Amino acid sequence: MRAAVIGLGSMGQGAALSLLRAGIDTAGCDIRPEAAASLADAGGRTAATPAQAAAGADVVFVYVMNAAQSDAVLFGDDGAVAAAAPGTVFLLCATMPPADAERLGARLAEAGMLAIDAPVSGGSVRAASGQITVMASGPAAAFDRAGPALDAVAARVFRLGERPGDGSRMKMINQLLAGVHIAAAAEAMVLAASQRMDLAQVLEVISTCAGTSWMFENRGPHIVAGDWTPHSAVDIFVKDLGIVTGAANAAGCPVPLSQAALDLFRAASDAGMGRLDDAAVARVLAARAGVALPGDAGSGGTGSGDAG
Amino acid sequence: MRAAVIGLGSMGQGAALSLLRAGIDTAGCDIRPEAAASLADAGGRTAATPAQAAAGADVVFVYVMNAAQSDAVLFGDDGAVAAAAPGTVFLLCATMPPADAERLGARLAEAGMLAIDAPVSGGSVRAASGQITVMASGPAAAFDRAGPALDAVAARVFRLGERPGDGSRMKMINQLLAGVHIAAAAEAMVLAASQRMDLAQVLEVISTCAGTSWMFENRGPHIVAGDWTPHSAVDIFVKDLGIVTGAANAAGCPVPLSQAALDLFRAASDAGMGRLDDAAVARVLAARAGVALPGDAGSGGTGSGDAG
Repeated sequence: MRAAVIGLGSMGQGAALSLLRAGIDTAGCDIRPEAAASLADAGGRTAATPAQAAAGADVVFVYVMNAAQSDAVLFGDDGAVAAAAPGTVFLLCATMPPADAERLGARLAEAGMLAIDAPVSGGSVRAASGQITVMASGPAAAFDRAGPALDAVAARVFRLGERPGDGSRMKMINQLLAGVHIAAAAEAMVLAASQRMDLAQVLEVISTCAGTSWMFENRGPHIVAGDWTPHSAVDIFVKDLGIVTGAANAAGCPVPLSQAALDLFRAASDAGMGRLDDAAVARVLAARAGVALPGDAGSGGTGSGDAG
Repeated sequence: MRAAVIGLGSMGQGAALSLLRAGIDTAGCDIRPEAAASLADAGGRTAATPAQAAAGADVVFVYVMNAAQSDAVLFGDDGAVAAAAPGTVFLLCATMPPADAERLGARLAEAGMLAIDAPVSGGSVRAASGQITVMASGPAAAFDRAGPALDAVAARVFRLGERPGDGSRMKMINQLLAGVHIAAAAEAMVLAASQRMDLAQVLEVISTCAGTSWMFENRGPHIVAGDWTPHSAVDIFVKDLGIVTGAANAAGCPVPLSQAALDLFRAASDAGMGRLDDAAVARVLAARAGVALPGDAGSGGTGSGDAG
């Protein structure tokens, strides 16, 4: 089996490394040369374009940021589809509106390809160890062919139906919760700071209590350390909670917590923090409260609001 | 050692049963005779009043609903303090504003008692098995004396300081997260229902993803089953998120997600669902969205908005 990974951000890079570890010949490409170079160091092949990556591949992971980028790397100049053999499996891993996943899936099918709507969850650490969850929908033939590659990157692959769109619908629900939980962790930590509580102790105690969440335990340490190095950036949730509120508005479905969280991520992005870690949304609340967070005083690297 | 438990709701009853299992002679009292009777069935002693329960006890758990009830059972007619021996340890387990815990702790100390601000977390299932978390603050002498009783009811006892108030501050942060996470779980499930998704599948998949939380996994099944039997009631979070927003407002600290969640719990309470399970907040959103939830059609017991 030969695999390709288009887009080598933290999640795509983790998938590529997991494929290599499973003994699968893997080519990767990214607009950032250093990302491709780091894959080459690990034994992967580098490709200059999506077309080069897809040529000869059985399975192509599309691990870019959104629907527009997915469209471009599939069907744009030097796009993957024109270079791929008929029956190649394309896994659409970006978070996108379900309607876009349906549309891209249909275009891939028209081009003679097999498409799986395959958004993922689990974060960069689990991606690197091949332990993510995949929320997948697509035809059985695609799963049959892509099986070994999916097994290499994921701890769990949920098959949610035969049609692209169902995977993205599930991812949308996950992102609603994930985004609200990050904002809630920020709100909790800033309130705790306003009460002069020890934030490391808050993290330790609440992690054993009914108030905990995956995001509280994962992003809480970033707030406690005042470390805004991006594992997943603020602007990702501006996009993903925008997908949530867009779908909710179209359905006439009130989502007041998602809207409140989106407002905070947008405020963080507007303040120049769009490319910082999404936990930096705490800085928006801290600034409004006049509360200092760890890293605010004396460590110039985190105090400027610079997008880094 | 002899223990008393005043207030035998789901959490207090669990504590009393855990004390009995540890071989500690335990008396309980509750304004509902059936709650005391069920403790007697398990080998406990029943007391008609807080004073009777506290007479001869080394440790008294105060497991009522709020600060006002705690004040009443401690210092009101037939209150526990007048009947207790000097040096008795009182554990204040209700969720209350930190300032109230400080005040009650000071009054107990003036009366010659030892006081621990000891709110808990973990839910009724863990309470029944003696596996809750206690967020405790109080003098070392109180912990020395109450140690075996605390060990009987809790998997983890965090000692957060020497003064009552610190325990309640930590519990307040926990309730911020817990309340927001319940409301977020409701919001996610209602959006999923609006997209005609299988809610049982949503629960299964998201529980393995980064969007999960303790509350999503604990309350999600209630929504999937359309079962609003109260394990913890809507009105508890009207109270507890009121404590959160009150402290936040006093500190000038914005808490937009807590406020949005509180608005939903209040709306549920105003609609007559205050004594239903807190997951019933989903019904507020579903009604606004015009979406049916499990149990809405054909099962008269859950469709009326009755407080039950």
